[in-house]
Amino acid sequence: MDVTIIQRNKKLVFKAGEGSVLAVAASAGILLNAECNGSSKCGKCKVRLLGGAGSAPNAVEKQFLSQQELDNGWRLACQLAVRNSMVLEIPDQSHQANPWKPAAAFLPSYPPDPAVRKEFVKLSPPGLVDQRADYERLRDSLMIPGRGIDRELLVTLPTKLREAGYSVTVALTQDRIIAVEPGNTTAQSYGLAFDIGTTTVAGWLIDLNSGKIIAGQAKTNLQNLYGPDVIARINHAATVEGLDNLHGRILDTLNPLIGELLKEGTVAYQHIYEAVIVGNTAMAHLFLGVPPVFLGRAPYVPAFSREQVITAKEARLRLLPTCQVTILPNIAGFVGSDTVGVMLATDIEQRPGICLAVDIGTNGEIVLAGRGRLLVCSTAAGPAFEGARIKYGMRAASGAIRNVSINTDGVCVSVIDDINPVGICGSGIVDAVAELLKVGVIEPSGRFVSTEVAQTMPKTLRERVRRGSDGMEFILVKASSGIEDIVLTQQDIRELQLAKGAIFAGIQILLKELGASEEEIAEVLLAGAFGNFMKLESALTIGLIPRVDPTRIKGIGNAAGTGACMALCYQGMFRKAVGLAGRAEHIELSDHPDFQDKFVEALGFPTEGGDCR
Amino acid sequence: MDVTIIQRNKKLVFKAGEGSVLAVAASAGILLNAECNGSSKCGKCKVRLLGGAGSAPNAVEKQFLSQQELDNGWRLACQLAVRNSMVLEIPDQSHQANPWKPAAAFLPSYPPDPAVRKEFVKLSPPGLVDQRADYERLRDSLMIPGRGIDRELLVTLPTKLREAGYSVTVALTQDRIIAVEPGNTTAQSYGLAFDIGTTTVAGWLIDLNSGKIIAGQAKTNLQNLYGPDVIARINHAATVEGLDNLHGRILDTLNPLIGELLKEGTVAYQHIYEAVIVGNTAMAHLFLGVPPVFLGRAPYVPAFSREQVITAKEARLRLLPTCQVTILPNIAGFVGSDTVGVMLATDIEQRPGICLAVDIGTNGEIVLAGRGRLLVCSTAAGPAFEGARIKYGMRAASGAIRNVSINTDGVCVSVIDDINPVGICGSGIVDAVAELLKVGVIEPSGRFVSTEVAQTMPKTLRERVRRGSDGMEFILVKASSGIEDIVLTQQDIRELQLAKGAIFAGIQILLKELGASEEEIAEVLLAGAFGNFMKLESALTIGLIPRVDPTRIKGIGNAAGTGACMALCYQGMFRKAVGLAGRAEHIELSDHPDFQDKFVEALGFPTEGGDCR
Repeated sequence: MDVTIIQRNKKLVFKAGEGSVLAVAASAGILLNAECNGSSKCGKCKVRLLGGAGSAPNAVEKQFLSQQELDNGWRLACQLAVRNSMVLEIPDQSHQANPWKPAAAFLPSYPPDPAVRKEFVKLSPPGLVDQRADYERLRDSLMIPGRGIDRELLVTLPTKLREAGYSVTVALTQDRIIAVEPGNTTAQSYGLAFDIGTTTVAGWLIDLNSGKIIAGQAKTNLQNLYGPDVIARINHAATVEGLDNLHGRILDTLNPLIGELLKEGTVAYQHIYEAVIVGNTAMAHLFLGVPPVFLGRAPYVPAFSREQVITAKEARLRLLPTCQVTILPNIAGFVGSDTVGVMLATDIEQRPGICLAVDIGTNGEIVLAGRGRLLVCSTAAGPAFEGARIKYGMRAASGAIRNVSINTDGVCVSVIDDINPVGICGSGIVDAVAELLKVGVIEPSGRFVSTEVAQTMPKTLRERVRRGSDGMEFILVKASSGIEDIVLTQQDIRELQLAKGAIFAGIQILLKELGASEEEIAEVLLAGAFGNFMKLESALTIGLIPRVDPTRIKGIGNAAGTGACMALCYQGMFRKAVGLAGRAEHIELSDHPDFQDKFVEALGFPTEGGDCR
Repeated sequence: MDVTIIQRNKKLVFKAGEGSVLAVAASAGILLNAECNGSSKCGKCKVRLLGGAGSAPNAVEKQFLSQQELDNGWRLACQLAVRNSMVLEIPDQSHQANPWKPAAAFLPSYPPDPAVRKEFVKLSPPGLVDQRADYERLRDSLMIPGRGIDRELLVTLPTKLREAGYSVTVALTQDRIIAVEPGNTTAQSYGLAFDIGTTTVAGWLIDLNSGKIIAGQAKTNLQNLYGPDVIARINHAATVEGLDNLHGRILDTLNPLIGELLKEGTVAYQHIYEAVIVGNTAMAHLFLGVPPVFLGRAPYVPAFSREQVITAKEARLRLLPTCQVTILPNIAGFVGSDTVGVMLATDIEQRPGICLAVDIGTNGEIVLAGRGRLLVCSTAAGPAFEGARIKYGMRAASGAIRNVSINTDGVCVSVIDDINPVGICGSGIVDAVAELLKVGVIEPSGRFVSTEVAQTMPKTLRERVRRGSDGMEFILVKASSGIEDIVLTQQDIRELQLAKGAIFAGIQILLKELGASEEEIAEVLLAGAFGNFMKLESALTIGLIPRVDPTRIKGIGNAAGTGACMALCYQGMFRKAVGLAGRAEHIELSDHPDFQDKFVEALGFPTEGGDCR
């Protein structure tokens, strides 16, 4: 049977088997918003049935959709089954767009010194007086010989040397010859860096001769079909089949991403010699196909922590089979190599005074460096900062409200790509809550003010506060053609409180471990795609970070990815990353005696000028 | 259609496609004698058609078979096509039996020190105060940590550690953890050694704790379907398909051989941690799937010479995927790691005086050690010593005449396995020629005496000399029930002369390079399966080796295989092998100014008590 999908005036027709619209669309590469993974909990996967017969709406659909919506053909993709040919419309709100393209990472300005280098050699041809084997002849000609060679390369070496007239370029890692190319190709030397996040996978293509980033792309991690957060993925990986699914999905994300990076940079895959990968610990396990199951239960032990060096063939990446793939070391079950990347990118140990770095993604990792120590912890902040479990939440992608300002004149929103808003991303939520606190619509406890108090406010605000189906809510954007009201609900604010409370409590515990106070923090570095758009004052207003002088706070973008780029370009940086991972002291919060106390204390919002929350 | 094969009263019925009987039988695992590889030149693949219709005998069959044979249903398997169901009898003469089982190699008596060792460790279980990763926990517990781990092992490590209650045995190479087993399994540690010859592949299973050989087997190298000698194989490997065939065939030989060794030794494949392989240079290339094509043309350059260390997975051997497979280094295009094995087994550099070692197989490799030098060369002796290109020649397998004595009372033969003789192997040929020289049936030039002179001999000899279809011949065994006469022809003697002449000339050239004379040779070591049965006096009589005191000559059996066993059991021996391969001076005979001269000079047989040949 044929399924026709209409999306922003584009029409896609494909043959489909039976299944839910959610699964059938995913099989055609169209990802719908479904943070509950089809478990009837989020109601975000709205689609409109325009043609073909559908089953009668079920109880779940009746719960999430109004009668008017049902009358107009709106359905939930996770509930509606494909049993015959269908025509479906997917609105922007329901579509998972590719995430916002990452900002180019910053790199030091000195010349690269990557682990893989290329050397052009002219060999003397063999003769009866010099019968050295091809491989030994090549090896003897290298500046530093003593390297092995892969069987695959040995197979082609004899013909290659002769066809090239014994003038070849060799690509070398520390212990292997990984490529032999005819002529002098030393100018073509490239590497890839990846940050594998739970939600987003970002990649960079780097010229290893100049150290310049020549392409950067990001894609949704296709594993999200199996759940929005690390815990859901770990649980799904408990069976061999589930692990295979997740392993396959991350490769299905990375391989097309590689293709796009090569296309953008107009580089041939044969000229990529190394890839450096960072990611949270669970992602590193899933990338290698190693079961992360014991990460999910106390005492949260990973299968490995040290750096892993494998070949692209072993990794099943579409690159030269001999291409070196390096995964930076992780620190603990929930503090991965992405945090090591942040430490590396920020040179956190060398910064003067006590430095706090917070990497906010689906999880929140916190690093506190100072007094000769390097403390790290992970907080299960939950995915609120990525827009999940928020009624109109979405990731930082096209159509997301990224910033909000509210005053007595009304509400002003900035939308990614300047199109009609379809939802709100993490930075927008933080902004909205901060602004609502300022204008008094939300109390420091996180509750909406009472309807009586709301009546005393200016009309522009008053008319936006209403009681919805889930309790009180604030209308951020009013319905216009084709778009329903985008609101922030009481429940959304509670989600944000839980998330920011967890991070703030983590910070407090690290400070206590170091024996330092908030006032002693010299610098706060905010990492994560989220940090790209966030207004620092809003973060301070909601109490996400300690109340320090705003000049001491700095958004540093995807510092984890920057760290991967640096480890790719500089062997010294790679060694430094290994050293940082080894020195870092992991503080486990789950059984920390102070955590529950600090967490509850941090749930409220700071009052104007005061410290109590 | 069904093909029924009757062989020594055993009946095998199998479904077959179209093809020659030779090919169809090979596809069912039954190898026929066909040293010409079905090119209508040897006439050795006789079979009897007992049922089913066959094509009319063609010209080739009429050339090799008498009318009486044709009338009795005898056909050539390479000419007779399978087009319908057939019943065929395969006589012993036409069947390639598995080669004679190798004698157990000798090993030093001190305790083994293999490259792979096992260590039993009890780990402290993880907890919230000790969250080290599984791999790091394991690594930290080892006597010498600092080892990597394969991705495959990482995948199973978490479950394995927990199921084993954190008490496991680890198998380690110098840089990798290759196995993790529950409980204490240090007592089960085994290795394999192989000698991959052009004609025969021999293997040994060794207990790496005791150094004892617990199983030994040999099999026909199934590559022989593609030609009897190294040059034929190299030529066949010139195409990608041909290389694939040969690569596949050597694996089809090794994998069942591994199965038989494990069965004989009642050892599980999981407990094999290393395999050490020796073989001639072309075989080493084909085992790795590396094209040996440039070995076959001047200047005879191999793709590699150094030792190669790969995994069983890469090698496609049916062992633990992580099992370490080591190929000892080769020296030159036609002096392989088998010769390094001979050097190692004989400790040739340390023996007093000048020592000559000759390894006779399909090729002949010669080592001359003394005066601080180590010279090697290879002679294209041809396969006569393996029984090929000899009318009734066969390898040293069940039914082969292995020794011959001839005097005026008649001829006495010893047959391997004491059954009715079906052919003659290398040692039998050397014996027969030596004896015929002694009794005067052959002249020192290699020619049969004239019929007139023959008439003057005793009746027992006289009646055995006759003119056959290929010229003069000597009847070694007279026809009895079901067996035709086994004869040695003038052409057979010429083949032997070419083979022994090449070896003798090689010895002369090495002596000249060293500046030594025959008389200065302190010891002659004869290696090769061939050397197991050969009478030393016969080798001296035909002038295969220099005329030294017979007490100085020693048969050392499969010394190449012994070298492989030693390198498997002792890391020091492996390092010594690498050193020997590096120090050996290869003398290329193909362009040596003296070779043709010495070769022609060495073609004749030595006269009684004299030196001229």
